[in-house]
Amino acid sequence: MHNRYAFVAGNTGAWRILTINTHRGAALATASSLDLVPAPDPISTPPGAWALHGLISNVRYATRSEVTALKAVQQPLGRPTADRAALIPLKKSQAWWDLAQDDRRAIFEETSRHTAIGLEYLPAIARQLFHCRDIGEPFDFLTWFEYAAEHASAFEDLVARLRSTLEWAYVERDIDIRLERT
Amino acid sequence: MHNRYAFVAGNTGAWRILTINTHRGAALATASSLDLVPAPDPISTPPGAWALHGLISNVRYATRSEVTALKAVQQPLGRPTADRAALIPLKKSQAWWDLAQDDRRAIFEETSRHTAIGLEYLPAIARQLFHCRDIGEPFDFLTWFEYAAEHASAFEDLVARLRSTLEWAYVERDIDIRLERT
Repeated sequence: MHNRYAFVAGNTGAWRILTINTHRGAALATASSLDLVPAPDPISTPPGAWALHGLISNVRYATRSEVTALKAVQQPLGRPTADRAALIPLKKSQAWWDLAQDDRRAIFEETSRHTAIGLEYLPAIARQLFHCRDIGEPFDFLTWFEYAAEHASAFEDLVARLRSTLEWAYVERDIDIRLERT
Repeated sequence: MHNRYAFVAGNTGAWRILTINTHRGAALATASSLDLVPAPDPISTPPGAWALHGLISNVRYATRSEVTALKAVQQPLGRPTADRAALIPLKKSQAWWDLAQDDRRAIFEETSRHTAIGLEYLPAIARQLFHCRDIGEPFDFLTWFEYAAEHASAFEDLVARLRSTLEWAYVERDIDIRLERT
């Protein structure tokens, strides 16, 4: 399956782990390095290492005008200048998933302005969302960001704004891993 | 994983296959019986048999008022009186999945009235949707229906109405399997 990937943490990898901050819920084991790799099947890891699996899927909330605005400015992963990254695995509550589509959309965008806020930080910050709730993973989403060191303070601003939204009232596990390209 | 199931076709099973009609796309191999079983992992089948995997997930289009209307009348699977069933695996086109959320919603409900039409046939027909696009399956959805023989003509009416909608312009594989409880 071409849509499935894994973040593999251990002793080696393309990214050096700088910090792992547990904002909500149970922590993840510490590790020194991380790789993002295609992973059609579950990856088994040695003791002390871990792998989080996710898949790229269709948009779930964005409207046509939002998709158009995003596509006009968003950048791909892997830019040579983007030597900083963040992996933020998130799990939302059962209450969130029990909401109807219009209620989730209203919290996500009309109230919390998730896409609108994110747009302010493009093209500096490249993003990719991986879904994992439906495949038995411990998180619902693996959110991945790449940016240049000069945009590190803008990224701090972005995540602080998102964490202050009503949407985050439904986030029950939130771990923020910061990385630097090796 | 408690949300994952498989429809397994072969020589034995709780349901006898009456007909398999290929409406669009490639056919499935014929079989005499079918079972619906919890299947956390992929099931391997003997030659001539097949298994289709799917998972139960959150609603993707229904609004709060639609969810409330559905919950008020929908019936569970496994009713003793429901000795007929239909398994209709569906695959939609890439064009569908490339649409933004609001465009898919508008086609699904405001134009095609998918939920509104379905509601007319509740509580007679019990339904369960299984998602499978994101897990590397050949279909996007496995739709499952159970009803009493006396409601068989109502069910024919329901599927004919849905197949006549604009939404079905985005369906590229559609196989209709009818069954009777053994």
